[in-house]
Parts: sequence; C-alpha cells; structure tokens
Amino acid sequence: MGSTFGNTLRVSIFGQSHSPATGCVIEGLPSGVTVDMARLQHFMDRRAPGRTPWSTPRKEADEPRIVSGLNAAGQTCGTPLCAIIENANTRSGDYATISRIPRPGHADFAAWAKWGQAHDIAGGGHFSARLTAPLCVAGGIALQLLEERGVHVAAHVLQVGDVRDDRFAARDMDAAAQQRLAGQMRRLHQLPTDAFPVLDEDAGQEMMSLIDRIRRDQDSVGGAVECVATGLPAGVGGPRYDGVQGAIARIVFGIPAVKGLEFGAGFEVAGLRGSQNNDCLELRDGQVLPSSNFAGGTLGGISTGAPVLFAMAVKPTPSIARPQQSVDLTSMEPATLEVRGRHDPCVAARAVPIAEAAMALALLDSWLSYPPTDWRA
Amino acid sequence: MGSTFGNTLRVSIFGQSHSPATGCVIEGLPSGVTVDMARLQHFMDRRAPGRTPWSTPRKEADEPRIVSGLNAAGQTCGTPLCAIIENANTRSGDYATISRIPRPGHADFAAWAKWGQAHDIAGGGHFSARLTAPLCVAGGIALQLLEERGVHVAAHVLQVGDVRDDRFAARDMDAAAQQRLAGQMRRLHQLPTDAFPVLDEDAGQEMMSLIDRIRRDQDSVGGAVECVATGLPAGVGGPRYDGVQGAIARIVFGIPAVKGLEFGAGFEVAGLRGSQNNDCLELRDGQVLPSSNFAGGTLGGISTGAPVLFAMAVKPTPSIARPQQSVDLTSMEPATLEVRGRHDPCVAARAVPIAEAAMALALLDSWLSYPPTDWRA
Amino acid sequence: MGSTFGNTLRVSIFGQSHSPATGCVIEGLPSGVTVDMARLQHFMDRRAPGRTPWSTPRKEADEPRIVSGLNAAGQTCGTPLCAIIENANTRSGDYATISRIPRPGHADFAAWAKWGQAHDIAGGGHFSARLTAPLCVAGGIALQLLEERGVHVAAHVLQVGDVRDDRFAARDMDAAAQQRLAGQMRRLHQLPTDAFPVLDEDAGQEMMSLIDRIRRDQDSVGGAVECVATGLPAGVGGPRYDGVQGAIARIVFGIPAVKGLEFGAGFEVAGLRGSQNNDCLELRDGQVLPSSNFAGGTLGGISTGAPVLFAMAVKPTPSIARPQQSVDLTSMEPATLEVRGRHDPCVAARAVPIAEAAMALALLDSWLSYPPTDWRA
Amino acid sequence: MGSTFGNTLRVSIFGQSHSPATGCVIEGLPSGVTVDMARLQHFMDRRAPGRTPWSTPRKEADEPRIVSGLNAAGQTCGTPLCAIIENANTRSGDYATISRIPRPGHADFAAWAKWGQAHDIAGGGHFSARLTAPLCVAGGIALQLLEERGVHVAAHVLQVGDVRDDRFAARDMDAAAQQRLAGQMRRLHQLPTDAFPVLDEDAGQEMMSLIDRIRRDQDSVGGAVECVATGLPAGVGGPRYDGVQGAIARIVFGIPAVKGLEFGAGFEVAGLRGSQNNDCLELRDGQVLPSSNFAGGTLGGISTGAPVLFAMAVKPTPSIARPQQSVDLTSMEPATLEVRGRHDPCVAARAVPIAEAAMALALLDSWLSYPPTDWRA
Repeated sequence: MGSTFGNTLRVSIFGQSHSPATGCVIEGLPSGVTVDMARLQHFMDRRAPGRTPWSTPRKEADEPRIVSGLNAAGQTCGTPLCAIIENANTRSGDYATISRIPRPGHADFAAWAKWGQAHDIAGGGHFSARLTAPLCVAGGIALQLLEERGVHVAAHVLQVGDVRDDRFAARDMDAAAQQRLAGQMRRLHQLPTDAFPVLDEDAGQEMMSLIDRIRRDQDSVGGAVECVATGLPAGVGGPRYDGVQGAIARIVFGIPAVKGLEFGAGFEVAGLRGSQNNDCLELRDGQVLPSSNFAGGTLGGISTGAPVLFAMAVKPTPSIARPQQSVDLTSMEPATLEVRGRHDPCVAARAVPIAEAAMALALLDSWLSYPPTDWRA
Repeated sequence: MGSTFGNTLRVSIFGQSHSPATGCVIEGLPSGVTVDMARLQHFMDRRAPGRTPWSTPRKEADEPRIVSGLNAAGQTCGTPLCAIIENANTRSGDYATISRIPRPGHADFAAWAKWGQAHDIAGGGHFSARLTAPLCVAGGIALQLLEERGVHVAAHVLQVGDVRDDRFAARDMDAAAQQRLAGQMRRLHQLPTDAFPVLDEDAGQEMMSLIDRIRRDQDSVGGAVECVATGLPAGVGGPRYDGVQGAIARIVFGIPAVKGLEFGAGFEVAGLRGSQNNDCLELRDGQVLPSSNFAGGTLGGISTGAPVLFAMAVKPTPSIARPQQSVDLTSMEPATLEVRGRHDPCVAARAVPIAEAAMALALLDSWLSYPPTDWRA
Repeated sequence: MGSTFGNTLRVSIFGQSHSPATGCVIEGLPSGVTVDMARLQHFMDRRAPGRTPWSTPRKEADEPRIVSGLNAAGQTCGTPLCAIIENANTRSGDYATISRIPRPGHADFAAWAKWGQAHDIAGGGHFSARLTAPLCVAGGIALQLLEERGVHVAAHVLQVGDVRDDRFAARDMDAAAQQRLAGQMRRLHQLPTDAFPVLDEDAGQEMMSLIDRIRRDQDSVGGAVECVATGLPAGVGGPRYDGVQGAIARIVFGIPAVKGLEFGAGFEVAGLRGSQNNDCLELRDGQVLPSSNFAGGTLGGISTGAPVLFAMAVKPTPSIARPQQSVDLTSMEPATLEVRGRHDPCVAARAVPIAEAAMALALLDSWLSYPPTDWRA
Repeated sequence: MGSTFGNTLRVSIFGQSHSPATGCVIEGLPSGVTVDMARLQHFMDRRAPGRTPWSTPRKEADEPRIVSGLNAAGQTCGTPLCAIIENANTRSGDYATISRIPRPGHADFAAWAKWGQAHDIAGGGHFSARLTAPLCVAGGIALQLLEERGVHVAAHVLQVGDVRDDRFAARDMDAAAQQRLAGQMRRLHQLPTDAFPVLDEDAGQEMMSLIDRIRRDQDSVGGAVECVATGLPAGVGGPRYDGVQGAIARIVFGIPAVKGLEFGAGFEVAGLRGSQNNDCLELRDGQVLPSSNFAGGTLGGISTGAPVLFAMAVKPTPSIARPQQSVDLTSMEPATLEVRGRHDPCVAARAVPIAEAAMALALLDSWLSYPPTDWRA
C-alpha cells in the first residue's frame, strides 16, 4: 500500500501536516529488545524543525508517544508498535489560498487530480516533510536493533548547490580505508543535534553561507546526501526485485523531495570498464571479502559483506516566497502565487537522519525477511 | 517476494540461466484484451541475444509460449497468464570452474553466502540477464494494454563510456518540445530490431566502435538508458512509498546491472534553485498542465500529466576474459579466474527494451492499483 | 503481516489489553466520504463492555479519536486513517499470577513459546478481546461506505449452549423470503445498543437466563453468530485464494475465540446431493439471479448477487474462576490457577457487531480490489 | 492476489481446465533440499482423475515438469520453483453449450459477471478442480520439507452423505491417544493410491456404494475431510489475522468446493462450557504440553504444540446430468441445461490429498514467516 513498506518488518506511516497527529505502526519487531527512549529522542531531534538557521521556523517538539508494542518493562513484546506524534504548531491560515491554488513543485495538483477537493492540502497534507518524523521514529528503533547486531549507519550532506563535501572512504576495502571510514562515522555520530552534518567542516561552512544567501534571496536550493552502513554480513537480502537495493529504493523514493538514487559507483559506472568496476574477491581472516566496493555492498540484491553505500539527490524546497504561475482550481483561471508559510531553504541537512532511517529500516527488514538461510539449522 | 513485484498487476519471474526454462506469471491482467503475439515477438527480438555485434553470441529464440491466461480466442480471460521460454542453448561446461570460483562483479559470491553450495551458479543462475527475457514478455503485454489507453513508451541508449546521445525533449512542455519528443519516439519505434537504439546516429556510430574496441580489448563498458512515457493522466499512483517513482524503482533495481536511477532532472536538482526546478502550472484546452517537467512527471508519487521520464545507469558486464583475483570456495584458497562463456561487451543497447518493460509494468500497475478515484462514480 | 489484513483497503490493528491505547490504521479508503461519528459511536457501543449483565464489568468508553485521514470538513481525504482508543480502565494487578502461569484456553502459553518472557501477557495482551474494538472502528466506517452503495449488513446470536435462534431467511430467493429477510435485518438495526441481538425474542430470553446460570456457576459457555449482507452485485471478489470467502475467513479466524466458519449451507453440504445444493439461475427484471442461495452468495470466491451469508462458532470464554491445572513457567512446576480479572460468561452477543465489522471490511476490500471489471470503460 | 497465497513461502497457481497447461510457482523455498520426484508423483497420483470408480473418467497423467528452482543435482537452489502440468486430455466440445448457459452451482455466472464474455468458461476455466493438481505439486514438496523437520500430515474422508468415518484420536493428549493417532496416520500413509482413504474400512465400503448409487442416479453427493498434522512445535504462526488458522483457511476456502472449515472442536464449541473446552497445561519430559486438544493445536493463531486439526466440508459436485434451470447469457432467455462432460459423483476422496497439501503449505509458510523467535540467537 502507498504509505506502507517492508515485508517481515512492516512500517505504516500516517498523518497529515495539519491533522491532529502523525505517527507510525511497526509490525514484525523482534521481541525482548529494550527501546532506549532517550537515544530515540536524540535521533528525532536531528530531524526536528525550528532548531537551526537552515530549517523552517515551525517549531515542533516531535516527541513520539509509544502507545503499543512495548511491555511494562519497556521491551518490544512482539506485537505491533504504534508511535504517535501530536501536531502542536499548525497554522492552517497560511494555507487558505493554497487550497485553491496548487504550489508549483508540490504534490498539491497531483493529489487534487487523484483525490479531488477532499484532499487535505494544508501544509502538503500527507506529502508534507512532517511525515518524515514518524519515519524517523521507526528508523531510530531499527538503528538500535541493528547496533545490537554490529551494524552501524551514518550519513552526511554530500552536496548543496555547487558545494561538495568529501565522500565516505567506502570504495576501497584496505585496512587504511576502513579505518578512515570508521573515523568519519565516529565523527558524525558525535556531532551535536544542531550541527550541520558534513565530513569537511570548511565545506559545511560554505554550504551554510550559501543557504543563508539563498534564503535572503527568497529562494531555495537542492542538495545530496550520502549514507553508509557497515557490519552487514554477506548473504542478506531477497533476490532481484526485493533485494537490498530495491528495499532502500522503495523507502528513499517515498521521500517526496528525492529525485535520484545511486549505489556504490552509481552513475559513474556508465563511464567505467569492467576491469575497473569489478570488485575482486580476497580472503581476510578466513573470510571472503571484496577487495574494493564499486558495487556499494550489494550484487543481485544480496549483500556482499562490504559497506552498503548509497547517495540520494533532494530537490530544492518547492515552497518559495517568489511569485509563481499556477492555476486557481476553483475558478479554473490562471493565478499568481506567493507561498507564505514557513519552510526550509534547503532540506539536505534534515534529510541526513532520514537517509539513516531509510537505510536502517531497509537493512533490518532485509535481514529479517531474507537472512542467509540454513534450513537444517 | 524477491522475484515478484506489483500490486494489482503482479508479475513473478522464474528460471535460471541454465534451467530447463525461464518464464513469468502475470496476475491481475484485465480481461478481454487480445494479445498481439507478432508484436510481442518483435518486442522480444529487440532484447534477444546473438543478433548483433554488440551482444553475446549465445543465440536464443526467446519465443514465449503462453500456457494459461488466454481464452480460445487469444484474449486475456482475467486469470493468471503464464509464459514459458525454453532454454535452448545452454553450455554449462563453460561454468565448471565458476561453480567453485565466484566471478568478480557477479552475484555468485553473495548468492553462495545466501544459499550455500546448492545455489545454481551456472550462467549466474537466477541473476543472469536471461531473466530479463520473461520480464520483457510481461512488459511487452503491458505495453499493448497501455497503448489502448493512449500511453506510449520509448527508450534509447543515453551513454556508453564517455559517448553521450541526445536527451528526450521531455523537460520543456511547449508545443515545439512536445512535437520534437513525439518525433524522437516515432523514430525509435520505427527502428529495426537489430539497430542500435539512439536519437543521434553519429553518437550511435561512436558508441558501437567504442564497444568494438573494448571487446577486442577483452574488456567491457558501462552505459545509461533514458526512458519516457507520454499520455499518462494526472492522479495515477499511490502516495509516498508505492508511488510511480517507487514502482519503477523496484523493477529497475531488480535488473542486476543497474546501479543508479533518476527521475526528471535527477541528480542535477542538487545544484538547482527552487525558482529553477519548480514546474509552474498553466491551463491548456481547459486542462491544468505543468509548464515544464523538471519533476519527470511525478510529484509525491503521483503522476502530474507531464511525460514520465527516468534514466538508469547500467554497469559494465562483469564477465571479462581478463584474469581476475577471486577465491576458490572449495579449497578456500586465493584463485585467478578467466571468465570464458559468451557475454555482451556492453548491455546498454539490450537494456533499452528492458527499461521500456519496466516503465510499462510500473505504470500499468500504478494505474490499476491507484487510479484517479471517484468513489461515487 | 499478522495484525494486518486486506489488499486495496488495508487494516492494521495495534495495541494490547493493558497498553496505553489500542487502535487501527486504515489505508486505501476512498476520498470524499464524510464519516458520521455519532453512528460510528453507536456501532462501537454495541460491542463495548460493562453495559450489560452478560458482558464483563470492565467499563471502557471505547471512544475512538481519529488523528489522521480526515480533512478539516471531516471527510476521508484518501490518506491513511488512524483511530486511537485510550485504555482507561486497566487493572494489571489482576494479572500478576498469570504472567507466570498461562491460562488454559488462552494464547498465553503459545505467545510465550513464540515471544518469550517479553510477551505482554496482562489481559491477554494483543490477543485480548479489547482488540476487537479497533476492528469495529474500521468495520463501522466500512459499513457507512457500503451503505452508500446499497449494501446492508446484519448479524445475530444464532446459538448459545443448546439454545438456538431462528435463521436468516437467506437460503430462498423468492419475494416472500427476501421480504422476510429485510424485516429481520430492519428489526436488528432498530435494537437498542444494550439489547440481546436475536431474531426470536423467546430464544433470546432463554439464552440470557442460561448465561446467567452459567455465570453463577463460575463457568462460561460458547455460541454462534450468523451474519448476512444484501445488495452486493455479482462479480465482486478475487478468484480462488483471495475471494470473498477467503477475505471473510482471514478476518474471522483472526478473532481469537472463533473455531469454525461456514458459508451458505456450510457443513450441511456434506449430506446434500447436487440436485439439492445447486442454485439454479433465473431472470428477474432482466437480471440473472440465483433461484436459491445454498452457496451463501459466493462461488469460486466471486459474488453471485445473492445475499452473502456466513456463520461462525465462538468458543466459551477461557477465563473462568474455577481452579484449573497449568504450569508455572518460572519454576517449571505444575500449578493450579483461579482466573480472577473480569470476563464475559459468553462472548456471542458482543461478537455480533464484530461479525458485521468483519463482513463489511471483507466486502469493501473485495469490491475495491476486485470489482466487476470493464477495462475499456 | 487472487491466485497466490503465502508470505515467505509464496505459491501462485495458474492455468485453466482447457488451457495448454496448468502449474504453479513457489517462491521462498529453502535451498539445498532434494526433491524426491518419485514420492511427489505418488502424492500426485492420489489426486489424479480417471483411476477409480468414484472419480471422473477424464484421464490425466498429472506429471509435473519442474522447469526452474532446482540445481543440476535436483536440489532446491533458493530461487522460484516452477512446475508445469500439460493439459493432455481436453474435450472442449463438451462445453460448447456451457459457454452460453452457466451451470448451476459452478462459478460460471459469477465469473461472467466479473470478466465478461472473455472468461474462459470451458471446464470451469481457472475454477476447475484441475487447478488442485498444481496445488498438490506445491503441497507435495512442502510435505517433504516438513517431514525433514519431523512434521507429519494425514487426512481421510470424514463423511459422505449420511455415512461417517471414525475421527482422528487428536482431541485427547494422553499416551494411548497419541499412539492411536500415530497408528491411524501410519495406516493412511500405507494405503495404495487408488484406495478409498478412510479410517474405518466398513464406513469406506458404505461410502463407495452410496457414491455408486448416486452416480447411477445421475446425481452427486457432498462430503467432509478431516486433516491432522503432528510434530509442529509451539510458538509457530503469526498473531491474529495471519495465524495458523488464517493461513489454512485462506488456502482451504480457495478450493471452490469448500463451504465450511473448523478447527479442533469446531462448531461443537457453541454447545460447550469453558470448563469442558479449555485445554489445561501439563509438563511432560520437561516440556509444557496441553492436556487435551479442543483447540486443534492453535490459540490466537499460534501453535500450541498439540496436533493441528481441521475438518472441511466439500459440496456435492455441481455438474450433474439431470436437467437444471439456467439462463442463456447470449439471448438472455431462460434455458434448461443437461451437463455432459465427465465429472466426479463425489469429490471427497480426491479432496484428501488436497487437504494435506493445504495443511503442509500453511504450516511450512507459518514456520518460515513466523518462527518461534530468538532475536539474540
């Protein structure tokens, strides 16, 4: 279904930007795992709006209330976990015009064509970035479970406009590269929740000042996020259409702003030769391991034991104060629109924990649904 | 499940490179539609191997036998349609070594980690490009149904190595651009099945000679394919995780060679401003229509009425004759591998009908599963 | 997944008997339908505990709070609808012993074998009858949508112990029988929420006094419920495994107390001849209609146009105050258990709206997922 | 989808009575299991028509050809297994009239209402009993896997008309009852493929002579089948809607002839008291075990460790030679129909292996999808 993903671990997202609440239901969580609410809240705070100069001033506590799925001791009890996030700070007034005049770059018109006037357009309704909050609740819990199994996830802003950050050291597999990657991940994990998440601080400074210029310019700018996961054993994932790539893609392309996704060398492979792109195999401590990781940790949908690596492109926030041409769906006349409301000039930074959530949910479900099987065990 | 995709229109792919046969089962086809077998075979021939200098010499008839789902008159009868393609020309001998020594860049090792020694590794087993034949059977039928509803699909080789083709005229929406796009699609549809499918013939010549050089060099090269669909009305597709983007992504990332996918402006959005990337809305013949198409025809997972546009990157064929480092999984010793067998030096050209199949299946299922709804109709 | 059912209309149930709340998420609801909250509450009240001598004294308001899926005007907006029911009156103290000693006839031991000590056993956790409250929220909304399309549903207590009620006049299809059925349904719809829902009042009186005797006897008793739906056109439902029978069965067997389900003549068919059981076909006002309805309105999973009819058997409430043999899962010693807590001596009456909810959800999903198709329409 | 069931183990059935072939695709089979083709064929032969006086004279070899999913050594390789059964002996001529005049008791009219004239009505199309052949291929393979894990399945004809067989000794759990059950199962497993499968030979003789009388009477008769599985550990199955009961129900109600299904004491529970119906718990060899099995081996959808027991009612074969009233769908005039073709006077005997197949597929999928979980293992 449209707002649900996953097989064994199944996540449903519900809510609209201005409905009483948003939330998620997670089915298939293993039982007996204690959910660390403080760490979950810390993860939520990285995405929460209203805390930084580069995010929307709309302030939301984003404190999930878990109403089912835990026992009295705070452990998962095996049954569906539902988390609710109340929508405190809604200002539908801002959206009076929009309910008649769809905003360019938003799903407003497409949703109207689909659901008619009943579509709850305020704030983008179900397509609002607010809906990434419940996704992060589910992802934050998945991250805690994966860490119990030695899988670690990190992400950073790869690009904003024409400014680029360093890349994760995830293409080479030698000891030096692995150490460098571990350091990069550690650094990101130690950042305060209101830091701009990059590997190269200077690039981060440039990105922030670019974003600031663009905000003053009443405009917005796009970006890209890179995400990596280490510690996933080889043999995880379904074949072909439900493999690790597909599981990640399904969640990532469900984030309305995302227009591109690549794994490992990504689009660069179009220019490469087989002799360059093939990851040879070697033995390390008796383990078979790829010697390089152009594949981004997955072949044929199945994990190879190398880090899982993806990058996603997020478009510039469509809501800008500049006048734009649209159509009044009531009078069916052309109309000029100036979007008020409160919006991020660039969503890349807030998309970083969202990318981690997508990675964690896709990998955990792949592991639970398609483990390396031993029937006779 | 791993080898199945779709909701209302559900496609299951089965078979291995060297199993007696491959095939597909299609559930949810509307009833009463006559399948034009000649046109289906023509579509299959565009993907079939052994016909062109740039494809593997392994020759397969690729003639699907439909054993269920049609009535005596050759119409879909509403029940599951199963098509079988016998595997005529298999030479498992080529793969004796490979069953012990996984090929770099292939799923061999990942599948061994997943399924153990029982994995049918010959020719890549279930991960072989052969499995795109049954995908094309399903896609070829979907294309016929979509055309009945005025939806047309075309694709071309966008890039091989460093050589690039023109792009579809699908970003602008003015009459001139729409005419130009129609002409590009018509031209591609009229190409003979053994032609190299590009928009710019000179680029095609360059690509073919590059591929030829690389083959003689015992190497392979990657590429990219661009695919477009016109005529899809606005309001089709599920919200968020099961939208048009997600439906296409799930199929496309199930093609083992694909490492990147983008919609509309794709990764370019990272460098754009909202004022550039937003598609304004206008009225044409009383219809609301985007004035441009940076979004690639979909917002929030739902179609906008503009052409649906995606590009996908395909990696260089992993099978190359050059010696490569691997591991003997029997002795657990390092081993050097020279892949014999018969392989494409570049899969981009044969990936063109596959991209069209993916587009058609994703759009038809989205339309059947998530139509623009009118409950009271 | 275990706590989710449906295809196009997808319902997820969450919550435990003693968790902060229970609730449901409904995906795939058509947009633009106004939910009548007063009628929904009236439907909930028929199931709610603490109102009648034959139900548990545990009093719960059972007032659903809809937190998403409606627009400001109270219409469905096409996105997932989530309803929350707070668990007001929980007395976990009653269940201290039970967390160690599973109750005979309950899922306690099976769930412990599945999820271990983390299973939230209090009140039966996710297996409590409380979880039929959110099912009724979803069902109550489905009933409102079906009525807009002329489909009406009713149910009654068919049996308690050895006391039997009349049957619905749904096996014959002549005008007289149809009138009689309409009268039976009207009568049931007009009953106050605290009435004992039967067709024959005398039988109802007998049932109530039997239940009263059995309660004083510190025991419980089983029963059966019969449910009918009229107005469903022919041609609705998926073939075979996902037909109308299967859709109903999946929900009904998800009600922990249910141990039997039959359609139309049900188990009686084992003793019938084809010449008796076959429903002939006739013309009425130009419509093809079965002349009788031994089939219970469905053949091969597809609706025939006759009333859909099923009966389900509900076991006696397992919680009884009498001493029963069990095992202490902590000491792994035999133990004697006397279940305190508050329980229904017979669940048949409260199962009546639950059966209606199951029927409504199965029929609405079948209609949305597998309508009588006209591809060219 | 309509013709697919299962979660981790997913089975799709395809084919029509008179299409070139029928078959199935099984996804999610564990790898490395050798399929014993001789035993599979022996299982198929128990269902195959044309071998006994009580089955249709239509003779079909019913020899499945496995075209994918096995490696060269005949082991499952983890990828989708497709089996094809060619339709040798089709006589569509018999069905000329029927394509215009639907047969009472068949899905003919319902399918016409659903799919229109394109429905492949010959022999009942997709709703023919022929389609239980591919179900038995999947079930026969599942049975072999379950036996590797110590789960054994058996079924017998419980009733034909008014003649009843003994019941399985599966309600009591004492040593004597368990021995008696083991003996009953052994006896059934040793029967030749053409024997009438009952526990009490005298009852079997009565049933056969009743069937013979009814055939000469140009009529048919209904029946019931009882099926049991032993050796399934406690803790298997999803909660609520996707539990063991639901998994069995979904397959069983997909067999067109089935109109009723019950587990354990079934409809008898309506007349029982909690003190009678509750299965107490005891310790045996340190294992917690129910002291009786009124529940039929499942509570809340989860297995209890006791034998899984169900009974299903199959209606009399609708195809009878007697004249019956119907409607000519071409002229829309009343019409009298005498069904020629070749049909079973009673399907109960051939339904026995089908019940075993349904049980095996439901239990294996439940085990693979919802095992007793130990996250930290």
